[in-house]
Amino acid sequence: MNQDLPFINQYQKETALLGYVLAGLGWDQLTYMPEKALDSRSEQISYLSHLIHKKTIDDSLYAALQRLKKRNDLTSKQLLILKKVLRDVEKSRKLPEEFVKKLSKTTSLAYQAWQKARDTKDFKVFQPYLQEIVELKKQECAYIKKPGHPYNSLLDSFEEGMTVEKLKPVFEKLKKELIVLLRKIQQSEVYRKQKKTLLGKKLPLDKQKELCYDLIKRVGLTDDASRLDLSTHPFTQTLGVHDVRITTNFRDDPLFSFDSTLHEAGHALYELQLPEEDAYTVLGIAPSLGIHESQSRFWENMIGKSRCFWNYYFPKFKKTYGLKGNFEQMYREINFVHPHFIRIESDEVTYCLHIILRFELELGLLEGSLKVHDLPKVWNAKMKEYLGITPKNDVEGVLQDMHWSQGAIGYFPTYALGTIYAAQLYEQLVKEHPSVEREIARGDYTFIQNWLKSNVHRVGSKMLADEIIQKICGTGLNVDSYIHYLNQKYSQLYNFKN
Amino acid sequence: MNQDLPFINQYQKETALLGYVLAGLGWDQLTYMPEKALDSRSEQISYLSHLIHKKTIDDSLYAALQRLKKRNDLTSKQLLILKKVLRDVEKSRKLPEEFVKKLSKTTSLAYQAWQKARDTKDFKVFQPYLQEIVELKKQECAYIKKPGHPYNSLLDSFEEGMTVEKLKPVFEKLKKELIVLLRKIQQSEVYRKQKKTLLGKKLPLDKQKELCYDLIKRVGLTDDASRLDLSTHPFTQTLGVHDVRITTNFRDDPLFSFDSTLHEAGHALYELQLPEEDAYTVLGIAPSLGIHESQSRFWENMIGKSRCFWNYYFPKFKKTYGLKGNFEQMYREINFVHPHFIRIESDEVTYCLHIILRFELELGLLEGSLKVHDLPKVWNAKMKEYLGITPKNDVEGVLQDMHWSQGAIGYFPTYALGTIYAAQLYEQLVKEHPSVEREIARGDYTFIQNWLKSNVHRVGSKMLADEIIQKICGTGLNVDSYIHYLNQKYSQLYNFKN
Repeated sequence: MNQDLPFINQYQKETALLGYVLAGLGWDQLTYMPEKALDSRSEQISYLSHLIHKKTIDDSLYAALQRLKKRNDLTSKQLLILKKVLRDVEKSRKLPEEFVKKLSKTTSLAYQAWQKARDTKDFKVFQPYLQEIVELKKQECAYIKKPGHPYNSLLDSFEEGMTVEKLKPVFEKLKKELIVLLRKIQQSEVYRKQKKTLLGKKLPLDKQKELCYDLIKRVGLTDDASRLDLSTHPFTQTLGVHDVRITTNFRDDPLFSFDSTLHEAGHALYELQLPEEDAYTVLGIAPSLGIHESQSRFWENMIGKSRCFWNYYFPKFKKTYGLKGNFEQMYREINFVHPHFIRIESDEVTYCLHIILRFELELGLLEGSLKVHDLPKVWNAKMKEYLGITPKNDVEGVLQDMHWSQGAIGYFPTYALGTIYAAQLYEQLVKEHPSVEREIARGDYTFIQNWLKSNVHRVGSKMLADEIIQKICGTGLNVDSYIHYLNQKYSQLYNFKN
Repeated sequence: MNQDLPFINQYQKETALLGYVLAGLGWDQLTYMPEKALDSRSEQISYLSHLIHKKTIDDSLYAALQRLKKRNDLTSKQLLILKKVLRDVEKSRKLPEEFVKKLSKTTSLAYQAWQKARDTKDFKVFQPYLQEIVELKKQECAYIKKPGHPYNSLLDSFEEGMTVEKLKPVFEKLKKELIVLLRKIQQSEVYRKQKKTLLGKKLPLDKQKELCYDLIKRVGLTDDASRLDLSTHPFTQTLGVHDVRITTNFRDDPLFSFDSTLHEAGHALYELQLPEEDAYTVLGIAPSLGIHESQSRFWENMIGKSRCFWNYYFPKFKKTYGLKGNFEQMYREINFVHPHFIRIESDEVTYCLHIILRFELELGLLEGSLKVHDLPKVWNAKMKEYLGITPKNDVEGVLQDMHWSQGAIGYFPTYALGTIYAAQLYEQLVKEHPSVEREIARGDYTFIQNWLKSNVHRVGSKMLADEIIQKICGTGLNVDSYIHYLNQKYSQLYNFKN
């Protein structure tokens, strides 16, 4: 029986190692892998995933966990580990082997169908696969059976402790406020006259790269533990302790690489500042996707779209790109509000409306009130209602994200949660350290790095996301900070009364 | 019992997949990995290696193999697979778990000590670790117990079927001939006057890169299944079916990147042309390191240092680098003979003397006639005897290769075997297809690619290295081809009677 603790530690270590290796395979696939290697790579990934799953549902692991539960000599840390491992194990054990295989096969085919549907701009190609995924996800909810709304069983995988019951009123309030704010902005004279003059042109890639490297260094990523590479879509992967890789992509819009690098650098800083003493355990990771996203959105939005940040970067931009124009124009262009069909191209004001739209559709699909074949129609209607625009085709609409093809229903809300948490964190930061905006204006983020480290990163998953926010800010998820921040900022920018 | 064949296939598939993943971890470590990631990466590598080992010594696998041995309904291919898997399994099972752990730990420490010894230019730092490795390797020979010389048990891991008894007379003959040839060259007037005028200067890195890319494309590597990256030392790794990565390094000597890329491209072409129908089995790989090296040396030496090859590449070089000078001078400079302390910097004539020296030292260490603490002294004496030069320090001498620190005793001979096999293959190629040199002079290697594919690559490991050579050339290992080739070529180049 005294082998139980070492056994649990070994389980965590082995699955953590396999997780890192999988992250490496994924990173390579999206950065350097030659294309014909895809099949062989998929086999490697699926084999290692299977190994992790097998370890997790192993009967002797379960028996050890049960024995440990009955012991009364465990430290509080051991108890926490036990609770977290047990949560993962019980969840995995609830899903029959056949179901896991079927889901894996279905999503693999669905991803291909989704790509083909995008090529042909036709949702119908993807529809039967999504139909099957929705059915499987309903089954998954029935297996997992979290209390409350069936959707909770999916949401909890990405955001432990979060529920539809908590989330719905928050999103309702946010939606209402965002729509009102957007209308005000759109009715302003500033909006009607807005035009990109500084950032409208294509800027040289090597210069973009230079600025990205400057940026990540300044955020706190060091060469000896991180990398910046290229991929079609930007992402962050952690390949080991002291090994975080981010990617970007250089597009015509020079802000794309800049913003996305800042976003990924926020994720990467979190990973690099996780508690090293908890490495290779369930406590040495972020507790949720929402809190992870709070770090990327914190840097991308709260820092990267702020006046003080651009006080430092505007002269650099001007010099690097040989731009003409004044600070106010630049600051406005960076914060232009303009409803866009594509979520990831959206501004601060409209972004969360994209998320809420998806959340509502996901609920409808799970509840059965929305049929998969009606998705494009309902998608477009909601786009019209919330953002005032109608997608020209399904690629601009319901086919834009890959998440559903991967079976990731319940994932989208974490983007909005991160955005809301980021505003709460920033508000608290300024309260605690009023001179921070002067430091940001000097390009000095040392205080912020350490503040995030001790308040968020060093916690690992010893607390849930909402508990971390509550401890720092005095209240858990609170959308008012974000709404207040947006109203303040954009009433000034668009010159109307808040 | 009818589950035995699927079980063996599954074992091969899983270990092949893990092997690919390990190759990827190794490739990344030497190309892109941030330095502080080393410890975590080592843990990943050691865990996956351990998984493979555990699978290989698994009792149920062994039992299945034993049952299969008794069956009389197996196809010849199944029998061959059985034989090969059984060979690996029996070898692994002969080594006690404790021994494997100790060797792994010792080599890990020894590698660090070797690096430190190089930094301080002092063999003594490495000596106690090498001492322990030699003792462990003696134990390994006692466990494996191949017939004949104890060294056979080590050699056979790298070159199945090869023995000291076969190799010693071949190396003896080669050594004598090479020393005579080297003396003749050194006594020639051409040698005394030789001076690098064309290739003596530093050439731009981006131009070097351009030529390397041209070269690998011409050899037959395609972008969709291979890559060329940078690392300190060039190498080839296979990360999956249709996924071969080679590396090079751009140094002052512009031929370094060119030669090494051609060398690695030879390895890579082999990997890409292995029989796809045998992928993920023990038959879908090269049968030995020697035959693998025959492919790299074939391209590097037999093709890449030939008059016809440079007929095509000289104008390209001249144009790319803006060189002045004539073809004869260039051809001479490429083939300059000049004894060098460092094996990997050596020319065709002296290279194998470096190998034979190491082979003799390894035999001495295993037989006990040579003590580890005498290694530097004996190394330097042999260098003086064979090459006429004396290393200034241990880094130029006994510390130059990492192989011993990794426990790879018995590996070096495969470099010479590859070199000899390459000469045999080229001789046969010209015999079968006399117009090949005219094709090479046009930069067209299509025939060669296909010839190597059908004769060597497509065989996989369905035959041993020596059997493959025998089938193609009519005789197995035969050093006369190489000796003849060198005497012919260098008597012309250095203008003396052969």
